[in-house]
Amino acid sequence: MATDPLPLAQALIRCRSVTPADDGAMAVLEAALAPLGFACHRLRFGAIENLFARRGAGGPHLCFAGHTDVVPAGDAGAWTADPFGGEVRDGVLYGRGATDMKGAIAAFVAAVADRLAARPGAPGSLSLLITGDEEGPAVDGTARVLEWMAAHGQVPDMCLVGEPTSRARLGDVIKIGRRGSLNAAITLHGVQGHVAYPQRADNPVHRLLRVLHGLIARPLDQGTEWFEPSSLQVTSVDVGNAATNVIPAAARARLNIRFNDRHTGESLARMLRAALEAEGARFDLDVSVSGEAFLTRPGPFVEALKRAVRRATGGEPALDTGGGTSDARFIARYCPVAELGAVGTTMHKVDECTPVAELRALAALYRAVIEEALG
Amino acid sequence: MATDPLPLAQALIRCRSVTPADDGAMAVLEAALAPLGFACHRLRFGAIENLFARRGAGGPHLCFAGHTDVVPAGDAGAWTADPFGGEVRDGVLYGRGATDMKGAIAAFVAAVADRLAARPGAPGSLSLLITGDEEGPAVDGTARVLEWMAAHGQVPDMCLVGEPTSRARLGDVIKIGRRGSLNAAITLHGVQGHVAYPQRADNPVHRLLRVLHGLIARPLDQGTEWFEPSSLQVTSVDVGNAATNVIPAAARARLNIRFNDRHTGESLARMLRAALEAEGARFDLDVSVSGEAFLTRPGPFVEALKRAVRRATGGEPALDTGGGTSDARFIARYCPVAELGAVGTTMHKVDECTPVAELRALAALYRAVIEEALG
Repeated sequence: MATDPLPLAQALIRCRSVTPADDGAMAVLEAALAPLGFACHRLRFGAIENLFARRGAGGPHLCFAGHTDVVPAGDAGAWTADPFGGEVRDGVLYGRGATDMKGAIAAFVAAVADRLAARPGAPGSLSLLITGDEEGPAVDGTARVLEWMAAHGQVPDMCLVGEPTSRARLGDVIKIGRRGSLNAAITLHGVQGHVAYPQRADNPVHRLLRVLHGLIARPLDQGTEWFEPSSLQVTSVDVGNAATNVIPAAARARLNIRFNDRHTGESLARMLRAALEAEGARFDLDVSVSGEAFLTRPGPFVEALKRAVRRATGGEPALDTGGGTSDARFIARYCPVAELGAVGTTMHKVDECTPVAELRALAALYRAVIEEALG
Repeated sequence: MATDPLPLAQALIRCRSVTPADDGAMAVLEAALAPLGFACHRLRFGAIENLFARRGAGGPHLCFAGHTDVVPAGDAGAWTADPFGGEVRDGVLYGRGATDMKGAIAAFVAAVADRLAARPGAPGSLSLLITGDEEGPAVDGTARVLEWMAAHGQVPDMCLVGEPTSRARLGDVIKIGRRGSLNAAITLHGVQGHVAYPQRADNPVHRLLRVLHGLIARPLDQGTEWFEPSSLQVTSVDVGNAATNVIPAAARARLNIRFNDRHTGESLARMLRAALEAEGARFDLDVSVSGEAFLTRPGPFVEALKRAVRRATGGEPALDTGGGTSDARFIARYCPVAELGAVGTTMHKVDECTPVAELRALAALYRAVIEEALG
């Protein structure tokens, strides 16, 4: 009889660990791992609780990476269940983190328990890298735990990130890379004036319209073998000019670029600057790169994941690089990393939930991953 | 010795008569006109103070039209003088209304005083049509005073509007028409979503950028014999989306069109609607026409004004129809109307000002206008 991941998933959901709060989540997890023989290292960086837990010292070393922090409940009144109640209703577990990704942590721990019960002397070692800062700035989380792991000889041979990557059916997607993400804030300065005399003013709205239209008119690229085309989305334009007879002095816009490995944050910042310089007006450009693109090219680890999916689900997984950023971008600097987890349909939404049967199926899938990766 | 218009100009500037406020401006003016023998009719419509003052009953009847209301000071901290102080510094009068158009009212009153002193029995009659609602909606101002004048047998034979029409040198421009003005507010509706998955959303900012770029990319016309080309200015774009990872649900813009007699408010509203329909998204369009285009074709009154300019300034005036709307659009329905006033460079701007010498020269020019128009 397989270990049931539900109780641990519920216990984790009941911690109100909205980034950067921990609210006891790491202690709940540590209490589950210690009896399984894991050496637990609580690593606090700034306001963030992190945990590195490892069982065994030999190779190969498979690490499971995840996070106990969650996004806010949003409109709590719109939920049909307490976002932090861990309620099961009609076979479905409700709560913030049910899919992203307290459920996956519980599923991996259940898989480890079954693995150890079935094959106590199996080769390799298992670890968990769990942060409380994935949904936040991600400064005092996974990146710093990895530095600690490198300094303490704990760099794994391969890493599975438990983000909810599945699209329609458990295991239908394995993420082997992620696009990078860049935010830019643009201010274009003109010369204020009366709307009846545009020749005596310099309308910054028109200049901004030309720049932004140029940026959205042509695609950034056509995609690559592994990546879909990069995408630029203008998320806001703000002038705030209430006077209908006045040409304003400045116009502002914000945009986000999700980019594949044909670009870097640096190359895109240069492109934006060139587009603004070509318009020939005074401007401010503020660029922040929240993650560079990365790719784990298919190899032995990805093959092991594919075999595990086939065995556990009977389906064939697609290799994918779409979606938002994840902490895998930090891990990719150290070892092969891929992401495989629950169906993410309800993540970040009201009534985030996962069928209990699917949570248990995820535990079985992770058990297969451990077997395929470590033998 | 000519009457100095400066004291009255200063007294008017010191009234904080930002539309619709009067703040005593009409009383200041009435106090200057009554001693000159004007019959003053204070006409209050809604929240607006208006004044019709006439001296004499015979023809020809020359009316001077203007307004005591002003636009707001804007960034008062950016002024080097109190916007409502009427300060003279280095021979320059500073203050909101110095050029648009409290200065012109003072100049006309000074011209009238000199005319009456020099030729007490001269033919014709003089009147002033002064409103407090020119910079605002212009609903309870000149249009309604004209209705009152028509009802009371006070329709003039010709009307001079004292707007600051001069471009570089006093009297270099006489306006014989004005473009129309239309304001439009546009809302484009899309589908909100995560910025990483634009294919699951419908970015209304991009749709709005395409529509607006199309509107500013091609001119509305090439101008006519008397009119410059029509002009479309996007004055504000507002999305107000603070979340960098969210594609917003709607995007808003406001624009103003100054149009010549090749268009009507109705034809332009149709053009805007067609541009929005071509984009294929749900939209709201709110159009308000604050004035249709009009033209006073050159004739005896315009010739009298040209002679006055030549005599007072030595220069040759250009006949022009450019710039914003003015209340002349209402007067044109009743009698020949033209506009002649100060150099408008600083109107509506920070540090609005006029050299005192130019204010006095404007009084001399208006004196010449009275003489050329009435004999």
